[in-house]
Amino acid sequence: MTVENKRHDLGVAALAVITGDTGAAIVEGLKDIAPDLAEWIISFSYGDVMSRPGLDLRSRQFATIGALTAMCTAAPQLKVHVNGALNVGCQPSEVIEVILQMAVYAGFPAAINALGIAREVFKERGIALRPVAK
Amino acid sequence: MTVENKRHDLGVAALAVITGDTGAAIVEGLKDIAPDLAEWIISFSYGDVMSRPGLDLRSRQFATIGALTAMCTAAPQLKVHVNGALNVGCQPSEVIEVILQMAVYAGFPAAINALGIAREVFKERGIALRPVAK
Amino acid sequence: MTVENKRHDLGVAALAVITGDTGAAIVEGLKDIAPDLAEWIISFSYGDVMSRPGLDLRSRQFATIGALTAMCTAAPQLKVHVNGALNVGCQPSEVIEVILQMAVYAGFPAAINALGIAREVFKERGIALRPVAK
Amino acid sequence: MTVENKRHDLGVAALAVITGDTGAAIVEGLKDIAPDLAEWIISFSYGDVMSRPGLDLRSRQFATIGALTAMCTAAPQLKVHVNGALNVGCQPSEVIEVILQMAVYAGFPAAINALGIAREVFKERGIALRPVAK
Amino acid sequence: MTVENKRHDLGVAALAVITGDTGAAIVEGLKDIAPDLAEWIISFSYGDVMSRPGLDLRSRQFATIGALTAMCTAAPQLKVHVNGALNVGCQPSEVIEVILQMAVYAGFPAAINALGIAREVFKERGIALRPVAK
Amino acid sequence: MTVENKRHDLGVAALAVITGDTGAAIVEGLKDIAPDLAEWIISFSYGDVMSRPGLDLRSRQFATIGALTAMCTAAPQLKVHVNGALNVGCQPSEVIEVILQMAVYAGFPAAINALGIAREVFKERGIALRPVAK
Repeated sequence: MTVENKRHDLGVAALAVITGDTGAAIVEGLKDIAPDLAEWIISFSYGDVMSRPGLDLRSRQFATIGALTAMCTAAPQLKVHVNGALNVGCQPSEVIEVILQMAVYAGFPAAINALGIAREVFKERGIALRPVAK
Repeated sequence: MTVENKRHDLGVAALAVITGDTGAAIVEGLKDIAPDLAEWIISFSYGDVMSRPGLDLRSRQFATIGALTAMCTAAPQLKVHVNGALNVGCQPSEVIEVILQMAVYAGFPAAINALGIAREVFKERGIALRPVAK
Repeated sequence: MTVENKRHDLGVAALAVITGDTGAAIVEGLKDIAPDLAEWIISFSYGDVMSRPGLDLRSRQFATIGALTAMCTAAPQLKVHVNGALNVGCQPSEVIEVILQMAVYAGFPAAINALGIAREVFKERGIALRPVAK
Repeated sequence: MTVENKRHDLGVAALAVITGDTGAAIVEGLKDIAPDLAEWIISFSYGDVMSRPGLDLRSRQFATIGALTAMCTAAPQLKVHVNGALNVGCQPSEVIEVILQMAVYAGFPAAINALGIAREVFKERGIALRPVAK
Repeated sequence: MTVENKRHDLGVAALAVITGDTGAAIVEGLKDIAPDLAEWIISFSYGDVMSRPGLDLRSRQFATIGALTAMCTAAPQLKVHVNGALNVGCQPSEVIEVILQMAVYAGFPAAINALGIAREVFKERGIALRPVAK
Repeated sequence: MTVENKRHDLGVAALAVITGDTGAAIVEGLKDIAPDLAEWIISFSYGDVMSRPGLDLRSRQFATIGALTAMCTAAPQLKVHVNGALNVGCQPSEVIEVILQMAVYAGFPAAINALGIAREVFKERGIALRPVAK
């Protein structure tokens, strides 16, 4: 197996673990005009980066949700990764904790709007909304 | 003890655990012109938010480092929280993993510049720089 | 009355003055999954910060509209605060002036898109659109 | 002809060349509440800036698409300028190249979301989607 | 007098009122490579925009300081406009209020770092630092 | 030659063409703690992306300078790419045109601060500063 194939295969596997079928569908949807971007997502983002052994997948998702919440400019990706966090074993309440924490670093609008996306994901997955209180 | 005192005391404790003496010094340094901001950092940011029980401190630091790396606009705070991550038990290599991961979500300049801040912290703490490779 | 109750009550009052019923509804809508964020909006954002006596409410709204227009990442909140500005006595023409001014600091897309939100608010409130010219 | 008229006329001409009828319609749509912003778009953005002779229009559109893709906060304007790029002779594949390149500088979400806007424009113009591969 | 001269003269006057000698020096410093940008700052930013009669200069400065604090990407300009606010009659305590308020909308790092710039300005102007408390 | 080697070699070549020795030095400087990031810069950013044949290097640099100017958060990288633009045949006056244009899309502070970086590069390269006027 070539190195390139290994990157691709690692990426396909990581993408499946983290995003379920969603990531593969997004990648597939890019192939009409940008098949190389689709391949970079697989082999670079998921093969080279997300599948690195030095940090567990739960921690990676916390970092990503923190970042996407704070950036406020990537709603579709935040939705993918709220799902991704749940897929790799994060609790809904933990996802909310990360989002709430971003009120401190990126302001209340960032946290409020990200929470709306998390609520959407929870509803789609049939997760009962329970107040996460201190 | 009043609720307000409890928020303050929780915040002082969380600030000490996460930032060591640094956070207290920063808070102290704000008192000349904005003592209320200083108090908000203690009672709101650290008392209300960072000391919430629903997520462990390591995960909170990964989320914060992801966010500050991706935002690219808070170098002094990123430095505080790279230290904070190490203070609560994150490994230097894990901090680097989070920063590298941000190349995917916020671009290479974000990761490269944050890595410069992490290197600075590691040197100040006498942490031997070892290549973090896959 | 405890300090904590005072913060809450100050916040409820400031929220009502600035946002009318809208803010309370938004806060209420957060309680299903994040009641603490709801409380922070009341007691911190509006109780601790927005109700501070050192700056009049009109000036506070001008600062907020300037910031949210320039950030370009908080459309729902900008809508709330265009309403808020009108609620505390800012003229529609003054709101537009602040938004136009942001073309200088944050670029034309920021101003154009914020103006679309302001127009929406004006229409909902039945404010006749009159050209604001020099 | 006065200098002011010259700026306006230069702007009207550049706006037409770059945006076709779209820009004029957007400018017209601003006149109900902000006729001066409308005039600034014409006389400053297009008259003073975009019609400067020191750089060809194709290069200007590449720079604008790079910027708007990286900023992630101006979707309507990105749509205008993807059209603008095609109007001044950029190839669809070149527009995609610029967007893909932004994955490096601003992260994958920036590139993916901008590509969605480009696809929309291509479809509206009846441009056959052909995979742009290396 | 031509329209163009009027814009320039209005801009020179507004620049002097708001920035004292600083703005003129900055504009002068741009002339070596970008004299047109220098002229745009005068005739567009200050002539067309900042000198519009529909909003008082104090309110304009509050909006600008809010925006530049929230953007976190324009430290030199924030410094100019903290000075500008004081030049047009804003109190130091009011400038601090606007900056503190941005903790809510853009996060604590934004407010803390902007406060550092305000402190610098206050010191340069010999303004005694007095705690601004509620 | 394996695919992986080809990506690396393409990247090394593109990095040299665009950044001269600077890029290689930056990449080398990352190897103490993040050799994989160093390799990604070479094989992904320059090998996969920047060396794609579908767009000429001059246009790529205009897009990058537009993006980095508008983002306002990557000064070191903007410096590298102003040099890069000159290395691949862009004229100093063209670089300035792109930066000036960003005043429209990202605001005047973005353009002013980027111009400061361009001036620095021009001085280091001994390029006589000549006013770029319309």
